[in-house]
Amino acid sequence: MNTHISQEYGGLGLGVLDGCIITEELAFGCTGINTAIEANNLAEAPLIVAGSPELKKKYLGRMTEEPLMASYCGNEWVINGQKMWITNAGHANWYFVLAKTDSNASTGKAFTGFVVEKGTPGLSIGRKEINMGQRASDTRAVTFEDVVIPDANRVGDVGKGFKIAMAAFDITRPLIGAGALGLGRRALSEASKYANERKTMGKPIIEHQAVSFMLADMAIGYEASKTLVYRAAYEIDQKRSNTYYASIAKAFASEFANKAATDAVQIFGGNGFNTEYPVEKLMRDAKIFQIYEGTSQIQRLVISRYINEKFVQ
Amino acid sequence: MNTHISQEYGGLGLGVLDGCIITEELAFGCTGINTAIEANNLAEAPLIVAGSPELKKKYLGRMTEEPLMASYCGNEWVINGQKMWITNAGHANWYFVLAKTDSNASTGKAFTGFVVEKGTPGLSIGRKEINMGQRASDTRAVTFEDVVIPDANRVGDVGKGFKIAMAAFDITRPLIGAGALGLGRRALSEASKYANERKTMGKPIIEHQAVSFMLADMAIGYEASKTLVYRAAYEIDQKRSNTYYASIAKAFASEFANKAATDAVQIFGGNGFNTEYPVEKLMRDAKIFQIYEGTSQIQRLVISRYINEKFVQ
Amino acid sequence: MNTHISQEYGGLGLGVLDGCIITEELAFGCTGINTAIEANNLAEAPLIVAGSPELKKKYLGRMTEEPLMASYCGNEWVINGQKMWITNAGHANWYFVLAKTDSNASTGKAFTGFVVEKGTPGLSIGRKEINMGQRASDTRAVTFEDVVIPDANRVGDVGKGFKIAMAAFDITRPLIGAGALGLGRRALSEASKYANERKTMGKPIIEHQAVSFMLADMAIGYEASKTLVYRAAYEIDQKRSNTYYASIAKAFASEFANKAATDAVQIFGGNGFNTEYPVEKLMRDAKIFQIYEGTSQIQRLVISRYINEKFVQ
Amino acid sequence: MNTHISQEYGGLGLGVLDGCIITEELAFGCTGINTAIEANNLAEAPLIVAGSPELKKKYLGRMTEEPLMASYCGNEWVINGQKMWITNAGHANWYFVLAKTDSNASTGKAFTGFVVEKGTPGLSIGRKEINMGQRASDTRAVTFEDVVIPDANRVGDVGKGFKIAMAAFDITRPLIGAGALGLGRRALSEASKYANERKTMGKPIIEHQAVSFMLADMAIGYEASKTLVYRAAYEIDQKRSNTYYASIAKAFASEFANKAATDAVQIFGGNGFNTEYPVEKLMRDAKIFQIYEGTSQIQRLVISRYINEKFVQ
Repeated sequence: MNTHISQEYGGLGLGVLDGCIITEELAFGCTGINTAIEANNLAEAPLIVAGSPELKKKYLGRMTEEPLMASYCGNEWVINGQKMWITNAGHANWYFVLAKTDSNASTGKAFTGFVVEKGTPGLSIGRKEINMGQRASDTRAVTFEDVVIPDANRVGDVGKGFKIAMAAFDITRPLIGAGALGLGRRALSEASKYANERKTMGKPIIEHQAVSFMLADMAIGYEASKTLVYRAAYEIDQKRSNTYYASIAKAFASEFANKAATDAVQIFGGNGFNTEYPVEKLMRDAKIFQIYEGTSQIQRLVISRYINEKFVQ
Repeated sequence: MNTHISQEYGGLGLGVLDGCIITEELAFGCTGINTAIEANNLAEAPLIVAGSPELKKKYLGRMTEEPLMASYCGNEWVINGQKMWITNAGHANWYFVLAKTDSNASTGKAFTGFVVEKGTPGLSIGRKEINMGQRASDTRAVTFEDVVIPDANRVGDVGKGFKIAMAAFDITRPLIGAGALGLGRRALSEASKYANERKTMGKPIIEHQAVSFMLADMAIGYEASKTLVYRAAYEIDQKRSNTYYASIAKAFASEFANKAATDAVQIFGGNGFNTEYPVEKLMRDAKIFQIYEGTSQIQRLVISRYINEKFVQ
Repeated sequence: MNTHISQEYGGLGLGVLDGCIITEELAFGCTGINTAIEANNLAEAPLIVAGSPELKKKYLGRMTEEPLMASYCGNEWVINGQKMWITNAGHANWYFVLAKTDSNASTGKAFTGFVVEKGTPGLSIGRKEINMGQRASDTRAVTFEDVVIPDANRVGDVGKGFKIAMAAFDITRPLIGAGALGLGRRALSEASKYANERKTMGKPIIEHQAVSFMLADMAIGYEASKTLVYRAAYEIDQKRSNTYYASIAKAFASEFANKAATDAVQIFGGNGFNTEYPVEKLMRDAKIFQIYEGTSQIQRLVISRYINEKFVQ
Repeated sequence: MNTHISQEYGGLGLGVLDGCIITEELAFGCTGINTAIEANNLAEAPLIVAGSPELKKKYLGRMTEEPLMASYCGNEWVINGQKMWITNAGHANWYFVLAKTDSNASTGKAFTGFVVEKGTPGLSIGRKEINMGQRASDTRAVTFEDVVIPDANRVGDVGKGFKIAMAAFDITRPLIGAGALGLGRRALSEASKYANERKTMGKPIIEHQAVSFMLADMAIGYEASKTLVYRAAYEIDQKRSNTYYASIAKAFASEFANKAATDAVQIFGGNGFNTEYPVEKLMRDAKIFQIYEGTSQIQRLVISRYINEKFVQ
């Protein structure tokens, strides 16, 4: 956890590529747990990108001293309003909030980022939401009623919140992609093991092309996802703009994870539908990867903005 | 329920096409409930196809007198052994059992069908299995230990069980397809309503092509599935062989239902992942349609056997 | 040819469903030839929908007396301008022209339909275009320079041209779908024959699941397309609005035809790429079905307009 | 051309990754020309892998002295028989022949490789085949009638021909993938340019999501293909086994190229079907990538053999 906080603030100072490798392994185990851990990165990313040295020291430093959680929210200015689906909201020590500070400005200039301490008066946390999957991850609504925030807790300049949030996505989308990668590899691993053991028509089902080709497709999807995730992480670690690659990695890897999990259930047959076998969980967990930190549709909107620059001569 | 039992035995004597129309509407509400109700049809189908007049009168008649449940199993002969995933096993009044009666014969001649009464000594019913979806449907293991069955309870000739089971599938696969049809229509209906209400970038999301084209694809899938299911039902109602059409209808409609439910979750975004919105349930419920009464792979094996007859001149 | 011209004007007065059955068989042979023949229907459809009795008698009647061709164009008013891709333009005896008659009006009111005789002064026909496929079909540009048309040749009211054209699509889209159906069936037929004869790894390739499942998917696509095309044709024959069904049929059948032709080439392997085998032609011919009389994208736009009415309660 | 022949024999001694970068650019221009040039690599690869120093000097050295062509064939031993689809057969200076030397042995031990000089008595070359695409590439049948080959022209040990051929694929499959990459990029480039210029409904079609999302999907496919091709090339350049990666790269990139070319035609609409626009050629050229040097099906068979080693712990 917090592996990407720099050594100056007590962290390990690892890169995004390092984070992706760790994330894949965590997600191989459980993407719910992985999301719970990863959520810290999402909340911390705006501070890493744009926080003042004092803010970084206080809030990033704090994360490395004891096992704390942070959450990432978005909200209307004067800090009134509500935001749904805040991961770790029940456990967070502080919240990164994107608040609208200029209701007349365009999206790109309307928001400002803040750090809000847990327990600040007016801040209340909803009940744990029950989701289709990733149930190990704590997701709640966060409500702000006349919550007062000192200016020192502002992250970056006034009106730069949206830009900071987008820059944070450049860090977190490869990590989301790595989570999808781990889930998809788990699906492939479980399905392969089962296909070696389970027999129909007198032979292990892995020997039927209908099954072995599904596994081959999962392997193709895994290797393609992996190179894309690593590329996206490597670019940002090299301080190069990676928005295009990060969107591609997240879009592709999350589609791979969903297909792999669904096909793993298919290979398990009736057993795949049962909660005592490991694959139905993977299918329930996978869908959120295509939704959070920008849906697959939003990734494609982002990618399409780079088409002219990259492919039209 | 039991709509297809003939009037002679106290039923309504409706056709399979009638059954499909009813099933779609039930499945629009809840496929778990629908499967629970439909399971009667699966158990009764072998009796309808091959039962003696006495058996029909006794076991089909009984179903129409009071709200009883029947289940469909398969087992090793001398009636020892176990079968997993028996729908309604905890509520069934009697069980249709496919038992191996000749261990040296080929599959086509190895099995014989029987009706086994609830409470027969040696018969025991396992705990309710917890599945990814369709949780309103009661699924359990059924175990047979030296269960004795009178010859009068034999369904059809000795060694004809497999053939009878296949003939029963000709009736039940269109009904499964109709269940998938109802689920898919529900997904389309919920996603459309939501897409009219939810706004992003200043307009209802149904006005974004990325969303409206997904809905259009669902509509295409729905209409195609519907005509295929009706065709399969109509053929058997006309006493014509419908195995080819029934396999196509089940394969196609179950793929439609899964895609529709998954895309409905996508259209709902973060809300789609939450259990308080109606679509995550649809996604969890849908997968079993591609698995039971023959997986999508088995449907394709069946279809491929008709290719030469139908398309090679 | 001209099967749908009513008996009053010397035709057979057959319905659209009849036409679809004929079209599938022609297209099984060659979709280029089929398009050449079908183009008459496209040109005649606006007259059938909205022509005055005199126009119908003159221009539809003429078609049935001798083997004549007609073409369908769209153009700017005063009849100046050019329209590309006019099928049969080099052989047509007359042209249906959609001309802009009010440049300030919205699309729905801007156009008026006309019949233009071959040889009218100012009308000139371009060279035969060479297309990827359907080379038996004659496609040319048609140019209008101060072409004068008598008012008697107007089809329907002034400003109603767009509506008439849309109504004509209701007739012609099922026929296009039937063309795709014939092409797809030919692909399935050729691929099946080949897969029975060609051997790899010691057995006919139809016995490898990777091949037989492709054939099964073609059969599924064929049966689904067929029911959708027939449904669309039947609705219009019953004088019911079929725009929704016609768009679904065209979109689905044309995608089926393309997938079937592409997979047939794959099954033929290296031979599939060679012009002496029958399937590369099918792949080249198929693509236009997804483009003319409205692309697949336009079909989806049309379908999406019916979603609320049909699926939101 | 011949960039991978080592400097010892007068070549540039470039790696496979270098070759892939060159190949992508050639293929961006024309995959027919690219295949004609690439065919040298295919013929030379077995010599590079297993030829004696004398053979390498004579036949690889010759390639670098003047612009010569070589071809790759397979044949029955005593060198009688025929092999279809030999690229460059009409221009080749020598042929690599895989001849069956032991008709009782298993495939892995039945073949031996030979270099056959152009003009050897008994060797005859068929007419140029006309294919759907890649027409710049010269493809012919090669016939052997009692062709006598000196033992010095044997490539590798007797019975090792199949293994040598497989090892040659490890070099050539990444190059094929790179060809697909170039074609796909060309499709994306042409479609993007067109989508910026062409207007419907009052705006450039690139602003319709139905179009921009297709372009985004092409970009995703391009970046994924590129990383996979480079990975496969890099592994063999590092002298590591790359069979798994080479199969994945070829399978994935060739599917990308076909989808990209087909969608480019769709974006061009009616113009896309016409031979004066650049994209119908791309669609005709692309299909062969899924067929030669092992079909997509064979790639999946190869990949599936690595599943247990890589994914089952």
